[in-house]
Amino acid sequence: MTALKLFELVGTDQARPFSPFCWRTRMALAHKGLTAESIPWCFTEKAAVAPYNSEKVPVLIDGETSVADSWAIANYLEDAYPDRPSLFGGAGGRALGRMMNWWGDIAVVGGMFPLIVADIPAHLKPVDAAYFRQTREARFGKPLEQVTAGREKSVEGFRRALDPMRLTLKTQNYLGRDTPNYADYIVFGPFQWARVVSPFQLLAADDPVHAWRERLLDAFDGMAGKSPGYPV
Amino acid sequence: MTALKLFELVGTDQARPFSPFCWRTRMALAHKGLTAESIPWCFTEKAAVAPYNSEKVPVLIDGETSVADSWAIANYLEDAYPDRPSLFGGAGGRALGRMMNWWGDIAVVGGMFPLIVADIPAHLKPVDAAYFRQTREARFGKPLEQVTAGREKSVEGFRRALDPMRLTLKTQNYLGRDTPNYADYIVFGPFQWARVVSPFQLLAADDPVHAWRERLLDAFDGMAGKSPGYPV
Repeated sequence: MTALKLFELVGTDQARPFSPFCWRTRMALAHKGLTAESIPWCFTEKAAVAPYNSEKVPVLIDGETSVADSWAIANYLEDAYPDRPSLFGGAGGRALGRMMNWWGDIAVVGGMFPLIVADIPAHLKPVDAAYFRQTREARFGKPLEQVTAGREKSVEGFRRALDPMRLTLKTQNYLGRDTPNYADYIVFGPFQWARVVSPFQLLAADDPVHAWRERLLDAFDGMAGKSPGYPV
Repeated sequence: MTALKLFELVGTDQARPFSPFCWRTRMALAHKGLTAESIPWCFTEKAAVAPYNSEKVPVLIDGETSVADSWAIANYLEDAYPDRPSLFGGAGGRALGRMMNWWGDIAVVGGMFPLIVADIPAHLKPVDAAYFRQTREARFGKPLEQVTAGREKSVEGFRRALDPMRLTLKTQNYLGRDTPNYADYIVFGPFQWARVVSPFQLLAADDPVHAWRERLLDAFDGMAGKSPGYPV
């Protein structure tokens, strides 16, 4: 087996990786029992990943192969390491994983972004903070602090959007049922991102989704939980 | 093999079954290559399904066994007929199907109900129409006609809620990928329900979800498409 390398988004603290998408990949690697050397990467370092036909991270390097995009990486790992624990639990799980990934991007990443975005620049180097603020304020059409204003109230819509998952967790511990699978990591990645960069409480303490997040923070010998972050 | 029987919701026209949940089961049976004798059932006929520990349909009867609830029926069919085409495509697909079923109930059934509810009583016998109107108006807190008022505008929110599915259909023909599986029927059931009882156009003609619905109307020798309904 060749040594794996993973370009991961970091801010001022190189030991504090964030990005919902990089955390999906981190969890997927752990699920497969694989470790990858981390290559810290910042928003403005486009040149570092350009050779891999990407402008963003995660980018996984596996010997001569490079794969960009967390969904593509999950599929690559499933195919390249078929004898290790499955990320999808069969063809049906992989097919439905495609939709879960979009749901995760829209309802989870998209839902929490306006709740935490103003907390992110403080974790970035000045050049990246400026880039981040400029590009994201253009997207929202207003200052980041105005985006997060009133989040104690607007968090309710985000929580409601998790209802399909919340109801699922009434009868099973994970989206993958008895053990987590890639669908869980699709949703957990964004929660870990938020935990790393923002003190804002996205979930009520008595929410079944909160308990599910605790289980994933503890998974793989507490890998995600040990990574620096705010208390949740 | 014993003869299967399925309690199905109908209105004045016994050959015009509706109910999003019954259509999920109908499609699941066809997927398994099974046929069931239809037992037409109306909203107020609680006594007919009480012996099967249910107040609602679908209820499937398979010899000595009876199963109520479309999700339970899908799981029963998968386990009882393992040699026939799989509804879930493995354990991962079944696990994620649980969440898809909740998403289908909330975003799809729940999203289209306020758009079509006022069209339903006209398809019911007087006693059922009165029961339906009374119970549903209590739920909405206003007359059904007020619920659907302005639906040309409010349909936009429903369509947006389908984004995770719409984006998925950009790279695969079905939620099950190359062929439909139970996840597709979870969403198709509600669309067929709407098509049977309401002339309202839930989808734009150029929507990938529209094209997907066409494929499922054509599936199984056009089973759903041949069932009476409004043009879509």
